[in-house]
Amino acid sequence: MTYQDLFEAIQEKRSYLCVGLDTDPARLPKHLLKHPNPVLEFNRRIIEATAPYCVAYKPNTAFYEALGPVGWETLRQTLEMIPRSHFSIADAKRGDIGNTSKMYAKAFFDDMRADAITVAPYMGADSVMPFLDFEGKWVVLLALTSNSGSQDFQVLKVDEEEEELLYERVIRASQEWATPDQLMYVVGATQTTELENVRRLAPDHFLLVPGIGAQGGSLEEVSKWGMNKSCGLLVNASRSILYASDGEDFAEAAAAEARRMQEQMRHYLDKYLPKD
Amino acid sequence: MTYQDLFEAIQEKRSYLCVGLDTDPARLPKHLLKHPNPVLEFNRRIIEATAPYCVAYKPNTAFYEALGPVGWETLRQTLEMIPRSHFSIADAKRGDIGNTSKMYAKAFFDDMRADAITVAPYMGADSVMPFLDFEGKWVVLLALTSNSGSQDFQVLKVDEEEEELLYERVIRASQEWATPDQLMYVVGATQTTELENVRRLAPDHFLLVPGIGAQGGSLEEVSKWGMNKSCGLLVNASRSILYASDGEDFAEAAAAEARRMQEQMRHYLDKYLPKD
Repeated sequence: MTYQDLFEAIQEKRSYLCVGLDTDPARLPKHLLKHPNPVLEFNRRIIEATAPYCVAYKPNTAFYEALGPVGWETLRQTLEMIPRSHFSIADAKRGDIGNTSKMYAKAFFDDMRADAITVAPYMGADSVMPFLDFEGKWVVLLALTSNSGSQDFQVLKVDEEEEELLYERVIRASQEWATPDQLMYVVGATQTTELENVRRLAPDHFLLVPGIGAQGGSLEEVSKWGMNKSCGLLVNASRSILYASDGEDFAEAAAAEARRMQEQMRHYLDKYLPKD
Repeated sequence: MTYQDLFEAIQEKRSYLCVGLDTDPARLPKHLLKHPNPVLEFNRRIIEATAPYCVAYKPNTAFYEALGPVGWETLRQTLEMIPRSHFSIADAKRGDIGNTSKMYAKAFFDDMRADAITVAPYMGADSVMPFLDFEGKWVVLLALTSNSGSQDFQVLKVDEEEEELLYERVIRASQEWATPDQLMYVVGATQTTELENVRRLAPDHFLLVPGIGAQGGSLEEVSKWGMNKSCGLLVNASRSILYASDGEDFAEAAAAEARRMQEQMRHYLDKYLPKD
């Protein structure tokens, strides 16, 4: 999916919602447990119910790896069942030396049908580049995350004179590696004071924003400071949608929560999308 | 396996060799391809052949993920077949927000039998802590890696006054999270000028050192600057051992290469292990 395709999907749906498929077997509705693969069935019904209100899905690989080989196959099948009209992100936070990153790229881009993969920047350029060799595929690079540990290293000052922080250097340096057509950044919704700053550094890039909902970030603040002329935002919600109800109506409840967010997003697109 | 167990294994074997099981299906000896699971059979024979000369094994998860669900099962079986006398490291370079890191820990420590997992530090304390909740299990934290991209962020100066670099801060900060009984650091063998410095910051910790062999690091330099009174080194070699021969004698050739390294290590233990 191209940058332009993604913006068109956002305009059509009036939504920049990404549904995080962090499916925890311990939180599945009881009635699904009789299904041969309860996680896959849960994902199938969540995707069907929420597809009208979102433009992207993001399974977090940890939740599937914890289930062993069956989980890995479930991840593959989940990526396969995401409609081609929607952007798919394998939230894997990988990154290794070149020949190894190439193996990860093969796993997620060739054997599985992911449009994008999240990558950790610590190992630098040659750990990220192999993912960019896949035409039409995207890297979503961790910049400023939503967790408390983001304060440990990401905001350290790496240039005294320029007052540059580590995550700012990551954003600046990585723009040498790829254009906004293949590169996004993770910026946590709990970091809204920094979003204006991120936009200054990366005016055209899409930002994947976790931390709305369970983690407490404000959708309006994110939209106000983060939106660019192509929207440039994918705002993720996982737990608030997946576990909106733990009863037989879980899919309807998920749809209702996704729709509630989409309605807010429609409003914010009207309010904050820069007019030419 | 405890810190003391590991030092005892090193003393008994006169070796601090870790064999990296980065098994690339494209490089398997032809005659193995008729086997139902050639990668697993290759690993089984490599482990049998090299066990007398090494104290640890380190499968890199990327090589298994690239094979899909079968690869994931092969990784589990490979970890299972590593003798209990040997330390096992899942080289996964994971790290995510707390509830997600917990899932990764479950995958590698509960469902698979790994003693340790490699973790990327970018997301900070709460991305690493969940791995440390598993008693007797280890985190191997990326500090200064062996690839060229290590120069992009890891050596940035994060404290002008103290002249502290990012990887030094990672080492210093992470010592608040765990003792040397549960925490090691990755320090690339291509960074020997920095090893003396790492030893000053982390005198007691084990260091996992990749980059010998195919990547060009010097075993003597690593041993000279990196060894502490419990040896404190696990030196990894992957490709130079796994692919020592691509014929039917691949296991014998791997054993010969592992023995060659072990003989050097025996010599360096005599030469550089500090006497009380």
